[in-house]
Amino acid sequence: MLSEFDLIAQYFNRPPRAGGQVALGVGDDCALIAPSAGTQLAISSDMLVEGRHFFPGADPRSLGHKCLAVNLSDLAAMGAKPLGFMLALALPEARPEWLAPFSEGMLALADLHQCELIGGDTTKGPLNICITIFGEVPNDGALRRDAARPGDDIWISGSLGDARLALAGYRNECMLPPATLSAAGERMHQPAPRVALGLALRGIARAAIDISDGLAGDLGHILKRSSVGATLFVDDLPAGPMLRTQERNLQHSFTLAGGDDYELCFTAPADKRDEVLAAGHAAGTAVTRVGIIEPALGLRLTDAAGAPLDLKLASFDHFATP
Amino acid sequence: MLSEFDLIAQYFNRPPRAGGQVALGVGDDCALIAPSAGTQLAISSDMLVEGRHFFPGADPRSLGHKCLAVNLSDLAAMGAKPLGFMLALALPEARPEWLAPFSEGMLALADLHQCELIGGDTTKGPLNICITIFGEVPNDGALRRDAARPGDDIWISGSLGDARLALAGYRNECMLPPATLSAAGERMHQPAPRVALGLALRGIARAAIDISDGLAGDLGHILKRSSVGATLFVDDLPAGPMLRTQERNLQHSFTLAGGDDYELCFTAPADKRDEVLAAGHAAGTAVTRVGIIEPALGLRLTDAAGAPLDLKLASFDHFATP
Repeated sequence: MLSEFDLIAQYFNRPPRAGGQVALGVGDDCALIAPSAGTQLAISSDMLVEGRHFFPGADPRSLGHKCLAVNLSDLAAMGAKPLGFMLALALPEARPEWLAPFSEGMLALADLHQCELIGGDTTKGPLNICITIFGEVPNDGALRRDAARPGDDIWISGSLGDARLALAGYRNECMLPPATLSAAGERMHQPAPRVALGLALRGIARAAIDISDGLAGDLGHILKRSSVGATLFVDDLPAGPMLRTQERNLQHSFTLAGGDDYELCFTAPADKRDEVLAAGHAAGTAVTRVGIIEPALGLRLTDAAGAPLDLKLASFDHFATP
Repeated sequence: MLSEFDLIAQYFNRPPRAGGQVALGVGDDCALIAPSAGTQLAISSDMLVEGRHFFPGADPRSLGHKCLAVNLSDLAAMGAKPLGFMLALALPEARPEWLAPFSEGMLALADLHQCELIGGDTTKGPLNICITIFGEVPNDGALRRDAARPGDDIWISGSLGDARLALAGYRNECMLPPATLSAAGERMHQPAPRVALGLALRGIARAAIDISDGLAGDLGHILKRSSVGATLFVDDLPAGPMLRTQERNLQHSFTLAGGDDYELCFTAPADKRDEVLAAGHAAGTAVTRVGIIEPALGLRLTDAAGAPLDLKLASFDHFATP
């Protein structure tokens, strides 16, 4: 059996990156970060629980990737540059055959975004993975939820709904060909956080949020905090490649209220459309204009002809009764 | 049943402190902190699991206090000034009769140290409380584990072993009068993080650590990272007021390898004894000189006459087989 200290040393300790902003990493009472002059630190935490956010027995490599990806996605939604993260891990037991692929999946994504593991905690307990991530943004440069203004376009990165389609397949809510389920499952297990897009949108976008609980609900947070409303052009929503093969009602439901997408929903002034498209191009991520911010509160849905659509939608709530 | 968003709003959202360094608190993708010029950010995470770090059914007010206290203690051990913290909470269910006292206990201690709750996560799952805390230290001013030098005195704040004595009482390892168990239990449930002392020791102490897993083991981290050894004067160790009523062997065992003390162990040059005592006085915390840092690696224990003591000690390891 590995001890707590051996476990950390073997799977998670690595030499600090040369030239990075981590002044002190794993191994002291605290880690130390030296933020750049003129910046603020952006901080986010996500806790993932077995049986709630991932299936018992989930592939550890994908799980390691996903736990960090959902946190990087929060930085992306602020336009923040990743610096580092803390990992707190409760494990029923310290098994190398789980820890090795878990740490590899996590640290590979960390390397891709130059985001160092700077510390954390390990303990025995029901499997629970809590990451707190740090990035930096220029002072007053963050893409906040409260910054949307009437007349702004609403944009979506990438595509929506394939992760929710995979969940429907796993739950036997709908029958999917194995190749479809496998491709949709990739979107669920290996989300690609839109960090480069978030950075490219600095100074162009106004408000932004990452879509974790479903577009309608997450856009709702922007509307509420910005004291505005919106119309979404539902037939313009970019359904995922697998969801596109399904019937229209399912496309509406899973693009609007799917969850687990980790795409960005952001607003930008209408005179910045070319700049938004150029930012998407530079970041290698498709961006699609899907609606407009309006002074009248509430969220309205229209079809391709501009006619109102009346859809029943539920956003995800961890404590809602089913 | 409270929803996730209602839960956060009702128990944890508070207006940001005026004049604080939290630029954006609860309610966006990330919180934003603006560190002072010339400082580094000190960051620590601790995860507390029911049945492992606290008893099932533990008093929620004390638990809220303790979860934050152990994190503040890590800031104290770096000489860092508290700024704010993130709270990630997995709960079996959202019960107001638990959440109200839990949040009150936590936020009362937060107010005492002007440490704002700036964000976090809530989810359904086995009870797990993960706090990540932020403080600031002047550049290159942190009290690090690797800074001890031969000739340094070793100091302890407050007293040791009463929390471990309480655990022994709860576990029926020893029989304690109810008043003794109750007073010792206070030390276990309501630790007072030595934040003021950590700040007062800036520029005076060299290395520091907080004692969470037992003095011998935690001092061992300083020795290892500083590549030095030490002698501890075991009979000079300040046993807690309740432990002092017990036999000498138990005093040795629980002061050296108790755990859950949250006192500071720090080193300082021998010519700074007066300054250390003045810092303790200014912070309202007793400080006791208990040993000396030496070039020869390893930890040596001596009694009041200076004769070697041979004690078997075990530090706490979350994954050790019992």
